[in-house]
Amino acid sequence: MDIGSGYLDNLISELERLPGIGSKSAQRMALHIIGLPMERVVKLADSMLNAKENIHYCHECFNLTDGEVCTICKNMERDHKTIMVVENVRDLSAYEKTGKYKGVYHVLHGAISPMLGIGPNDIKLKELIERLKGDVDEVIIATNSSLEGETTAMYISKLIKPTGIKVTRIASGVPVGGDLEYIDEVTLLRALDGRIEL
Amino acid sequence: MDIGSGYLDNLISELERLPGIGSKSAQRMALHIIGLPMERVVKLADSMLNAKENIHYCHECFNLTDGEVCTICKNMERDHKTIMVVENVRDLSAYEKTGKYKGVYHVLHGAISPMLGIGPNDIKLKELIERLKGDVDEVIIATNSSLEGETTAMYISKLIKPTGIKVTRIASGVPVGGDLEYIDEVTLLRALDGRIEL
Repeated sequence: MDIGSGYLDNLISELERLPGIGSKSAQRMALHIIGLPMERVVKLADSMLNAKENIHYCHECFNLTDGEVCTICKNMERDHKTIMVVENVRDLSAYEKTGKYKGVYHVLHGAISPMLGIGPNDIKLKELIERLKGDVDEVIIATNSSLEGETTAMYISKLIKPTGIKVTRIASGVPVGGDLEYIDEVTLLRALDGRIEL
Repeated sequence: MDIGSGYLDNLISELERLPGIGSKSAQRMALHIIGLPMERVVKLADSMLNAKENIHYCHECFNLTDGEVCTICKNMERDHKTIMVVENVRDLSAYEKTGKYKGVYHVLHGAISPMLGIGPNDIKLKELIERLKGDVDEVIIATNSSLEGETTAMYISKLIKPTGIKVTRIASGVPVGGDLEYIDEVTLLRALDGRIEL
């Protein structure tokens, strides 16, 4: 796409930086945006700025929220003594969509990966240990069944075991190497039911 | 994606309105945007607003430009007596990428479609006829080989014939029903070489 305009080149290269957007999609999106009425472009741009400005981590579980704590942590009908540990918000969202899990979550925002230089201090792990000083019955580790996810699960279970709190891992109904967010709800539930104590 | 935040819901629904973006991609992009540093989000939002504000149609050919006329029309080394008529800027871009076409363009911004209620007055057709009052040797019709594209080609050729200007149509090297912007450059060039007088 070369119309000799820095404005278009700039827009395309900004769009290309978004996940899953190649150069063809970026070009198509850019031309679409230029063709929109001005007020629609303002709405689109504002929606990004507003979301970025107002959404932050829940003080309790590190889910996203625009309040102090997220709607899940705020919900007193949920079982606050059961904490499911997930790698990211998309994985939390995947379990929420099943509608069957009634406990709360802890979002690590990553997984331990020696390859990528991500250690236990780079994810929300000490924050999890801090939460366990409260009244907790069970920690369900629902990290991905990738190498990093399994490493993280083993690491967490070794940290928690001495505290006497029950630690479980979702069953390997989740295909090895699979990514939680793309798995169907039935498989996700089967994995939850079949969880085994570590 | 339900974190009970109107800001996130709003961002996702704005992203979903972009072409080729489904709900899953919109969610992924939204979470990515929230995770970016503030200055990157500002850059992304600004790139949209700046492009929308500064880019408009070339007064000559209706390509996009941030000046008075586009870089192609401004280029005096190109053959201004040969005009290729395309449906949209992406199609112009596809022919530009071949680097072999040395004439200029006319972007219709659409094609005649009785089904969609798009008539000759809804595309930049009278602007094309206006241009033909100048010094023009040939009009190459490179609308898509879809029903609408063919209808538009026939309509234009009937309009131009009486003026005595040569009217050609790119060869049907382009697969029937195909969309110009996705076709490889060799096929595009073969279609250009094999063009026939209408």
